[in-house]
Amino acid sequence: MVESVFMAELSWPEWKAKIEAGGIIFIPLGATEQHGPHLPLNVDVILPTAVCEAVARNVGGLVAPTLSYGYKSMPRSGGGQNFPATTSLDANTLSLMIRDIIRDMGAHGARRFVLINGHFENAWPAVEGLDLALRELRRDGITDVIAMRLEYWDFVKQETLERIFPNGFPGTELEHASLIETSLMLLLRPDLVDESKIPQEGRASFPPYDIIPAPPGYLRQSGVLADARGSRAEIGKWLMDDHVSMITEAVRKEFGL
Amino acid sequence: MVESVFMAELSWPEWKAKIEAGGIIFIPLGATEQHGPHLPLNVDVILPTAVCEAVARNVGGLVAPTLSYGYKSMPRSGGGQNFPATTSLDANTLSLMIRDIIRDMGAHGARRFVLINGHFENAWPAVEGLDLALRELRRDGITDVIAMRLEYWDFVKQETLERIFPNGFPGTELEHASLIETSLMLLLRPDLVDESKIPQEGRASFPPYDIIPAPPGYLRQSGVLADARGSRAEIGKWLMDDHVSMITEAVRKEFGL
Amino acid sequence: MVESVFMAELSWPEWKAKIEAGGIIFIPLGATEQHGPHLPLNVDVILPTAVCEAVARNVGGLVAPTLSYGYKSMPRSGGGQNFPATTSLDANTLSLMIRDIIRDMGAHGARRFVLINGHFENAWPAVEGLDLALRELRRDGITDVIAMRLEYWDFVKQETLERIFPNGFPGTELEHASLIETSLMLLLRPDLVDESKIPQEGRASFPPYDIIPAPPGYLRQSGVLADARGSRAEIGKWLMDDHVSMITEAVRKEFGL
Amino acid sequence: MVESVFMAELSWPEWKAKIEAGGIIFIPLGATEQHGPHLPLNVDVILPTAVCEAVARNVGGLVAPTLSYGYKSMPRSGGGQNFPATTSLDANTLSLMIRDIIRDMGAHGARRFVLINGHFENAWPAVEGLDLALRELRRDGITDVIAMRLEYWDFVKQETLERIFPNGFPGTELEHASLIETSLMLLLRPDLVDESKIPQEGRASFPPYDIIPAPPGYLRQSGVLADARGSRAEIGKWLMDDHVSMITEAVRKEFGL
Amino acid sequence: MVESVFMAELSWPEWKAKIEAGGIIFIPLGATEQHGPHLPLNVDVILPTAVCEAVARNVGGLVAPTLSYGYKSMPRSGGGQNFPATTSLDANTLSLMIRDIIRDMGAHGARRFVLINGHFENAWPAVEGLDLALRELRRDGITDVIAMRLEYWDFVKQETLERIFPNGFPGTELEHASLIETSLMLLLRPDLVDESKIPQEGRASFPPYDIIPAPPGYLRQSGVLADARGSRAEIGKWLMDDHVSMITEAVRKEFGL
Amino acid sequence: MVESVFMAELSWPEWKAKIEAGGIIFIPLGATEQHGPHLPLNVDVILPTAVCEAVARNVGGLVAPTLSYGYKSMPRSGGGQNFPATTSLDANTLSLMIRDIIRDMGAHGARRFVLINGHFENAWPAVEGLDLALRELRRDGITDVIAMRLEYWDFVKQETLERIFPNGFPGTELEHASLIETSLMLLLRPDLVDESKIPQEGRASFPPYDIIPAPPGYLRQSGVLADARGSRAEIGKWLMDDHVSMITEAVRKEFGL
Repeated sequence: MVESVFMAELSWPEWKAKIEAGGIIFIPLGATEQHGPHLPLNVDVILPTAVCEAVARNVGGLVAPTLSYGYKSMPRSGGGQNFPATTSLDANTLSLMIRDIIRDMGAHGARRFVLINGHFENAWPAVEGLDLALRELRRDGITDVIAMRLEYWDFVKQETLERIFPNGFPGTELEHASLIETSLMLLLRPDLVDESKIPQEGRASFPPYDIIPAPPGYLRQSGVLADARGSRAEIGKWLMDDHVSMITEAVRKEFGL
Repeated sequence: MVESVFMAELSWPEWKAKIEAGGIIFIPLGATEQHGPHLPLNVDVILPTAVCEAVARNVGGLVAPTLSYGYKSMPRSGGGQNFPATTSLDANTLSLMIRDIIRDMGAHGARRFVLINGHFENAWPAVEGLDLALRELRRDGITDVIAMRLEYWDFVKQETLERIFPNGFPGTELEHASLIETSLMLLLRPDLVDESKIPQEGRASFPPYDIIPAPPGYLRQSGVLADARGSRAEIGKWLMDDHVSMITEAVRKEFGL
Repeated sequence: MVESVFMAELSWPEWKAKIEAGGIIFIPLGATEQHGPHLPLNVDVILPTAVCEAVARNVGGLVAPTLSYGYKSMPRSGGGQNFPATTSLDANTLSLMIRDIIRDMGAHGARRFVLINGHFENAWPAVEGLDLALRELRRDGITDVIAMRLEYWDFVKQETLERIFPNGFPGTELEHASLIETSLMLLLRPDLVDESKIPQEGRASFPPYDIIPAPPGYLRQSGVLADARGSRAEIGKWLMDDHVSMITEAVRKEFGL
Repeated sequence: MVESVFMAELSWPEWKAKIEAGGIIFIPLGATEQHGPHLPLNVDVILPTAVCEAVARNVGGLVAPTLSYGYKSMPRSGGGQNFPATTSLDANTLSLMIRDIIRDMGAHGARRFVLINGHFENAWPAVEGLDLALRELRRDGITDVIAMRLEYWDFVKQETLERIFPNGFPGTELEHASLIETSLMLLLRPDLVDESKIPQEGRASFPPYDIIPAPPGYLRQSGVLADARGSRAEIGKWLMDDHVSMITEAVRKEFGL
Repeated sequence: MVESVFMAELSWPEWKAKIEAGGIIFIPLGATEQHGPHLPLNVDVILPTAVCEAVARNVGGLVAPTLSYGYKSMPRSGGGQNFPATTSLDANTLSLMIRDIIRDMGAHGARRFVLINGHFENAWPAVEGLDLALRELRRDGITDVIAMRLEYWDFVKQETLERIFPNGFPGTELEHASLIETSLMLLLRPDLVDESKIPQEGRASFPPYDIIPAPPGYLRQSGVLADARGSRAEIGKWLMDDHVSMITEAVRKEFGL
Repeated sequence: MVESVFMAELSWPEWKAKIEAGGIIFIPLGATEQHGPHLPLNVDVILPTAVCEAVARNVGGLVAPTLSYGYKSMPRSGGGQNFPATTSLDANTLSLMIRDIIRDMGAHGARRFVLINGHFENAWPAVEGLDLALRELRRDGITDVIAMRLEYWDFVKQETLERIFPNGFPGTELEHASLIETSLMLLLRPDLVDESKIPQEGRASFPPYDIIPAPPGYLRQSGVLADARGSRAEIGKWLMDDHVSMITEAVRKEFGL
C-alpha cells in the first residue's frame, strides 16, 4: 500500500496508528459551484484539497475526504444559486454533515482537526457544525479535542498580493473565478482551464447588501466576479507557497509541533 | 478543457448544454469505512464511482461528485461503527444531503438521475433522500423527474458468480472487504491493495439479528467478513464488465435511449 | 387485573416490578399498508405483535404497544406509497419515535430490548432509531442497555421453507401479501382474510433497481407481489412455530436466560 | 372479511371505496402513561379509541390506528415523566407523526379528519401536527381538507357532571386516573381494573405553575391525581353516552351530514 | 450605568455578579398577535414583561429579553393565524429557541428560571423547550437547575375576579383582547389603546373543538373574543397587583427566599 | 393610538392598511451579547433597531419586533460564547425563526422586507432563514417578495471613517464594543454607558483562524476587542447619519420609491 496523506487511501490499522501518534486530521471544505466559462465546477474542491495535502505532508497529518458539496452560493461572492450546475446544501445539512464527521472521528480517537475552507459561503455552516460536534463530543466524555478553522486565502503575504496586484488588492470576495483562482488552477490542474474562454468583462461591482431575487443586471452573466485576465501558473505558485507555508506555521504553533 | 464525464470537471455552460440535451446525472454513493487491513478506506468510493464513470460514458451522462461519507456501518455488513477510521453520517444527515443535491440539480434543469450505491448501508437513507427530493421538486412545480436507484453488485450474471464461486455464491452481505471487493480494487487501484495483509480467518458467521452492543467474539477483528484470499484483478474485470454492461442496459431501457 | 404480557395492560407498579426483575421489552414494529384485496391493512401489525406475544410469554418479557405506522412502502417490497390506504411515516419521524420510546423506557430502568420488525421497510429507520436511543442513553449515564433487532421472517427452518415451497423458496421480498403472510393471517385472524379475493395474477417480477415514479405496468394492480393461492392456516402454523421457537432461542442465548 | 369501522381491518379497495364515498377518518390520540395502581397503562388508548369507534359507526366513518404513544406526561395533569412505565414522545416527534399520517391519507383522497384526543398533553403537538399537515397538503395542491380536533371529555352535559359530582365538578385536569377514567374503564375493560388497588389518598392539590424538577411531596405517590373511589361502570356509561352523542352531533354539523 | 432589572441593560460583569449571588432569571414569553382594532400587536409582550419586571424587582432577579414572537394563534383563544399582522413561530422553532436560551444561561451559571407566559398558545412549546433545555444541561453535567413556568393570569384572587365580573367570571380563554387585557394596557400603556375602536359585538361563542379551516362566521371579524367595553386602568391595577404579589409569593416559596 | 413606525404598536387593521399600501417591513437582527464592562448586553439590539426606526420613518415602512437573541458569538468578532451573559441561538434555531417570521408576514400580504443586522455573527443564519422563507413562500404561491439584507455598518462614507480614524480604519470586525459601538451608544442610550469602565488594553490581535477552544491569552479579558477610548456621542452621530441616509437611499433605489 502506498504511503499517503489521504486517509481514504489508508487501511484502518494504518489510520489508527497515525491517530494514536497524534496525527492531525485536515478536512477540506469544498463546493460544486460555477466558476465561469473557463474553469470547472470543482475549483473549490481542488484548491483546499491541495492546500490540505501540502500542509498535512509538512506536519505528518492526514487529509479526510473533501466535502464536495458546500453551502449555497451567494450572488456577491459566488454568483448565486441561479447559475446552472451550482449544487449546494442547506446550511443545516452541511452543519450536520460536519458535526457527524468530526464526532465520529473523535469517537475513534482523533483529537486534532484543521478545517480548511475553499468556498467562502461554507464558513458559517462550518463554524456551526464544529460547535455542534464539540458539544456532542463533550457529552460523550471527550473533552480534549482542539480544532482550527480557516479560509486558506487569508494566509498570504502582503508582498505577494502587491506583486500580483501592483495597483492594490481589491479584496477577496470578488476573486471568485478570477485572477487568483484561475492562477491556482493553472498551477494545479491546467488541463481543466480553458483560457480562451476567460471573460473580458472586467470587475463586477456590488452594492453592500444582498437583494433577493437579484434585479436585472445585478449578476454577471459569465459567473466571473472580477477579472481573470493575466492569470498565470506562476502567480498560483506564489499564492500556494504562501498558503502552505503560513498555514503550516499556524498549525505547528497551535498544536505545539 | 478536457472532455469529461465528471461534471466537476466541466464549466457551467458545458454542464448546462449536457443537461439541456437530456444528459443523465449519475450520483455515486460511497462511504469512508474500514475494509480490512489490506484495503483502503475508500473502497466504497472508488467502486461506485468507477461504475458510474463507465456507464455514464456509455450513455452520454455525467457523474456528479461522489458522496464520500455514507451511512453508519453495520456489524453484519460492514464491521460496524466501532472500527477506527469508519466515519459515517446519521441517516437524516445523509438523506438531507441527497435531497439537497437532487433538488438543486432539478431546479437547474436535470430531469434524469441514477443513484449508484457502493455501500450497503446507504440504501435506505438514499431511498428517503430521493423521496424527499422528488416531493420538494413537485412542490416547486417540477414533476417530470425520473430517478433510478440501485446497488451495483446486484447487476451480475449468474454464470459470473458461478465462475468466481464454483462452490456456490454465499451472498452479497458478507462480501465486505472480501473476494469481490478485493478483486475489483486489484483491477481499479492495485496500488491501494496490500495482498500480504489479507486475513486468513475465513468467513464470518452472523446470527440473523442485530445485537447492540456486539457481544465478545461477534465482530471479526480484521474487519473482513468473508474471505479475500484468491482475489485477482481478472475476477474484478469479470464483475466490472457485468456491472457496467447490465446497468447500462437498464439505464437505456428505463430512459428510452 | 389480568396477568398479561402486554405492558399496556399492566399498571405502573406491575411494569416496574417486571422491569426490576430483568424483564425484556419486546417492541413490535408494524405498518398500515395495503396487502392486496384479500388481506387487511394491519397484517404488518398483527404478525409481529403475535410473534412478540409468544416469545415474551416464553421468556417472561413484556410487549410494548405496537408501532402501527411504519416507514414508506417500496414498490418492490410492498407495492409502494401510491396504493390507497398505505399510510406511512418519513424515515426521520419513525427513527425519532423509536428513539424516544427506548430512551424513555431506558430512563425508567428497562435495559433489555428486542425490536421485532414485521414490515420490511422499517428495518433501517429502526436501526437508526435504536442507534440514536442508545447514544442518548449513554449521554444520560445509562450504558448497560442491550438491544436485539430482527425481522421475524428470517427465523425459519430450511425444511419448513422446503415443505411450503417444494419447488424452491423464491425469497422473502416478494412475499408481500402472498402465501406466507396470507397463511399466517389465516392462522391468527381468519376473520380478516377474504380468500375469495386472492388475486390470480401469479408472481410479480421486478428489475434489480428502484425506479421512481414507477413506469406503467411496473406495479401489480392488486398490491400482491407473489402468489397467495394455496395459503392455509396450517402453513401459518409451521411458520409461526419456527418464528417463535427460533427467536425465543436467540433471545435466551443473547440475554443469558 | 368483516364489516369494520377500523380501517386497519379493511383491505385497501374497501378503504378506497369508503373514502371516495366521503368517509371521515377518525384518529384516536392516545398515550402509554401510568394511571395509578388500579388502572392499566393504556387507559388513554382505550378511551379515545372507543369514542372514535362509536362515533365513526354513527356517521359511517373509519377509525385509523390509534397513536399509542403520546406527548410527555406533565405532573399537574398526568403525574409526570418520572413515573415508571410512562413512555412518551418529544413534541416534535409527535407532531411529525401526525403530520405524516394526515398528509399520506390526504394524498390518497381522504378529505375529512377528526382527531379525538384522550391524553391531555397531546393537545398542542396535535394542533401543530395538524397545521403542518394541512400546510404541506396545500403545497401538494390539496386545499379542501377539513379537520376537527377535540378532547372527548369536553363533550359532556352539565347535568351528567352534576349527577356524578353532586358537590360540584372540580374540573377535568385532576381527573387523571380518577373517578371519570376509572368509571369509563369499568364500562369498557373491567378486566383491566383492579378496584382493590384504588388509592385512598383523596385529591391532589397543585399550585398554578409548573415546577421542574418537582419538589418533594409535589407528586402523588400513587399517580392518581384526584379520587377514584366510588367509580362505577354506570357512571362510565353516562359519560360515554354524552361523549358519543355530542361528538356525533358536532361531527354531523361540521361536515353537513 | 443605571441599576436595572433588565439583564439587557447590564454589562456582563454585572450580570455575572447577579447570577453568582443566586439571581433568578425571569423570561417573559410574548407574541406578536392581533388584539382587536383598539389594542396594539404587542399586548402579549408588554403584559408579561411588566409582570416579570415587577416580580424581579421584588426578589432581586433579572428579566431576560422578552420573546417577542410566540406560537401560532388559535381561533378559540387568539383569533387565529388568518388575522393580518399575527406573526408566529412553528412549535419546534419556539421550543428550540427556549431550549437554546436556557441552555446558554445555564452554561454561564444561571440556576433559577421563571418563565412567565403572556400568550396562551405558548404554554406547550415552552413546556417542551424547558424540558429540552434541562435534558441537555443534565448531559452537560449541570443538574441543579430549577425552573418555574406559569401563565400570569392564573395568579388572581377570587375576589378580584368577582369585583371585575360581578355576574361571574366567564373564564380566561375568551379574554383575548377583552376587558382584562384592555384594562391592563390602560394601566401600562394607555398611549397604545384606542378606546374609541373597542368593538361592540359582545362575547364570542365557540364550540368545544377546533375546526380547520374555520367555517364562515366562526371567527369574530374584530379579533376580540369577549367584550372590552368597560375596561379601566383601575381594573388593570387590581389585576396587576394580584399577579405581581401572588407570583412573587410563589417564587419566594419555591426558591426558598 | 399613537402613530408609530413600530408594527408592535399598531393594531392589526393599521398594520394591514400599511402593508396594502406597499409598506416595507424592516426586521432588526440583534443579539444578547457581552460588550465589555462599559456597555450593556443589548448594544446589538439598540443599534439596528435605531437604524431601522430612522430608515422606516424615511420611507414610510414598519419596524418588526427586534430579534433580541442572535447567533453564537465568535471569539474573533464578539468575544465568544464563553463570556458570561452572552446568550445565543443555534444557527438552525435562528434560521427557522427568521423563516417563520417572514413566511407569516408574507402570508399576510407583506412583499418587501429589509433585514438590518446589528450582530456580525447573524449574517449567515439570516441568509439561510431568508432563503428558506422565500422557498416556502414560493411553494405557497407567493412569488413576488423582494428582500434586502445588510449589515448597517457597511453603510458609511469613507470620509466619515477617515474623520473618526485619522490613522486609518482598521476594519469592522474588531470594532466589537469599541469606539464605534460605544459612540453610537453614547448617542442613543448614554444612560447605559459607563465610560469609567472603558478598558485600557488597546486593540486585540487575532490570528486569521478560529481555534477552539481558545488557548490561554487568546481572548481579551474585558470582552472589548479594539479600543473604546475616545468614544463620543458626536462620532455616533456622524455614523448614524451615514447609516440612515445611505440605507434609506439603497432601500429607495431597490424598491423604486
